Amino acid sequence: MSVEELLVSAPGKAILHGEHAVVHGKVALAVSLNLRTYLRLKATTTGKVSINLPNIDTFVCWDLSELQPLTQYFRGKRDEIQRVDGELVRILRKFVGATNENLDSCFNAFISNHNILPSLTVSVWSELPTGAGLGSSAAYSVCLAAALLCLSRVIPTPLKECDHTARWCQEDLELINSWAFQGETIVHGNPSGVDNAVGTWGGMLRFLAGKIIPLNRVPLLRILLTNTKVPRSTKVLVARLKDKMNKFPSIMTPVLDSVNAISCQCEKVLSEMTSQPITGEHYNILEELIDINQHHLNVMGVGHPTLDMLCRVTLAKGLHSKLTGAGGGGCAITLLRPETHSMVVQNMVQDLKDCGFDCWETSIGGPGVQQHSPLTVKQEIMEILNQY
Amino acid sequence: MSVEELLVSAPGKAILHGEHAVVHGKVALAVSLNLRTYLRLKATTTGKVSINLPNIDTFVCWDLSELQPLTQYFRGKRDEIQRVDGELVRILRKFVGATNENLDSCFNAFISNHNILPSLTVSVWSELPTGAGLGSSAAYSVCLAAALLCLSRVIPTPLKECDHTARWCQEDLELINSWAFQGETIVHGNPSGVDNAVGTWGGMLRFLAGKIIPLNRVPLLRILLTNTKVPRSTKVLVARLKDKMNKFPSIMTPVLDSVNAISCQCEKVLSEMTSQPITGEHYNILEELIDINQHHLNVMGVGHPTLDMLCRVTLAKGLHSKLTGAGGGGCAITLLRPETHSMVVQNMVQDLKDCGFDCWETSIGGPGVQQHSPLTVKQEIMEILNQY
Repeated sequence: MSVEELLVSAPGKAILHGEHAVVHGKVALAVSLNLRTYLRLKATTTGKVSINLPNIDTFVCWDLSELQPLTQYFRGKRDEIQRVDGELVRILRKFVGATNENLDSCFNAFISNHNILPSLTVSVWSELPTGAGLGSSAAYSVCLAAALLCLSRVIPTPLKECDHTARWCQEDLELINSWAFQGETIVHGNPSGVDNAVGTWGGMLRFLAGKIIPLNRVPLLRILLTNTKVPRSTKVLVARLKDKMNKFPSIMTPVLDSVNAISCQCEKVLSEMTSQPITGEHYNILEELIDINQHHLNVMGVGHPTLDMLCRVTLAKGLHSKLTGAGGGGCAITLLRPETHSMVVQNMVQDLKDCGFDCWETSIGGPGVQQHSPLTVKQEIMEILNQY
Repeated sequence: MSVEELLVSAPGKAILHGEHAVVHGKVALAVSLNLRTYLRLKATTTGKVSINLPNIDTFVCWDLSELQPLTQYFRGKRDEIQRVDGELVRILRKFVGATNENLDSCFNAFISNHNILPSLTVSVWSELPTGAGLGSSAAYSVCLAAALLCLSRVIPTPLKECDHTARWCQEDLELINSWAFQGETIVHGNPSGVDNAVGTWGGMLRFLAGKIIPLNRVPLLRILLTNTKVPRSTKVLVARLKDKMNKFPSIMTPVLDSVNAISCQCEKVLSEMTSQPITGEHYNILEELIDINQHHLNVMGVGHPTLDMLCRVTLAKGLHSKLTGAGGGGCAITLLRPETHSMVVQNMVQDLKDCGFDCWETSIGGPGVQQHSPLTVKQEIMEILNQY
């Protein structure tokens, strides 16, 4: 099957529990965030590689002749093409220059199974806010890896004629993930690999001591994602916790142990929710874990008064929130219960917007990277992608 | 030296760290709260024992002939009079009837070194709010024990002519404490002994697994005591934590370990503050420990939205607070720094009063039970005591 046009999407990522503690060898639970990045790849005859990223107002285009010299790297390596290595990353970083800007937008040009480069246009639209720690770059890398591996026929396009969406087999996902990880390496230098793994597999995964284990089955949970838009430096926040650990080891070590136990307890409850009828008590426990962890994150020095305010605003509607990711501002998740009425959510969103926050009603635990028929993509997104 | 009139006072108690955790075998730090209970004992020739407790609008009076039958208990026990036992407590509880009301007000009548009961008037005024977990009944018991042990010449009156205030020697304090404990037993049934120990020794004491150890030297710290006046049941709160421990042992056990470490760290810092020049960093650490513990107490389920509000109000002035005692409402302490201007405190007190709270600017770590010359007692208190 030749690939003329391909539509794929990958989810963002949120940390459900264990942010920061993971740096100190504790379990973290990362979940897919159903704010997705959509990528359309189209084979052209223009003799150009065009990348359109309207979210970040970035549009780049190379003549194939500019890119051709880079294919030297692949000479005599036809059998190894499914792997990508540090040397390739070095070459690519050099090609795009010293600055990190748009590093990832060129990544797609070098993954062809042919030494003759294809002429193509890639257009991307993401529902994710960028730079908010929600894995937007990984979702892009995952989409790009999936689309280019299909284009180069290393993996098949899984969508059958009658399908709306389709996913790849485990082996193909592993390949997508490893290429996406290289994309992340080009962008971030030294990524943990969590973001691209969530973008690839979706659902939830356990991250412990550098090891990433996708979990079998997790329920889809309604959440509200809120961006406080308070800027923060992850580095500063990580250092703040480290200082506290050094200053008060006997006080802080048990706190991280407790966070670790929260992640394990949460994993257990979510697993129960897929094997037993879901009850209100399951949600009560999830809420209690959220509250405890939010207090612990404050103890760890990575909270922020706006996050406390956010928690109060949602609690006024009976809903429980915690920061997600780096903290010190940034984003928070609020668990919505199945019975939470949409009017309650709407009112809460208004209250949060009145605080100056951005909100998205979405879900966690949804599918990872998938191929779409155009009909299954929201029309407004298709309209944006079709502009290019 | 005959005792015609005697003026004594004893402090209240606050828990600095470790409330609730102490029930689970962790260290708690109890400190004297310099809101004092004053007791004036006056020998009379009325043939009556009168007790005046204007704070709680309680005034009782017995003819000595009513009380005389109770002295049978002491027949042949002249040498053992310095101890008080369960049998005596039983007799006293029976004498005052089934209800606990005013149980403690009769306690004084039975402690004489003579089988011939003395005729006397006891008047009490306390700066402490009652029923707020601040050891008001223990401060009363301690004052009463000290005054009656002096009256009965079991211990001397320590005040010399030139003194303003004076304290007893260690051995006498132990006797005062053991009688005060019996007073507490009459009132409370099964007291921990912490409140009367703080009232007797003052300063700070470490309480661990039922063992009470007064600490050598602690600095006097300025604090604001605030009563949220939110009613709470200690029993319900203790049960709430126990339920959480049973529900999430792996999450909650480390939290109590962390609380334990906070108490130990606090004790270390306070000890340093008496052996080294006090610096701002000492206060920074005390504040950090207060914040961490307040979060832990919320995790333990013994917080309350009004306490959170209180913390926010004081933090708006840069000052740090935590609940003290049972929580779930009740009282909180706010650490005032040496450099905290009185205007800042005044404004903060106004903000807290606007929330409906009661406030007292006082100190912790001050002296335990002491005898006073009338000149050292605030005039308004002397005026109240002299009415009777």
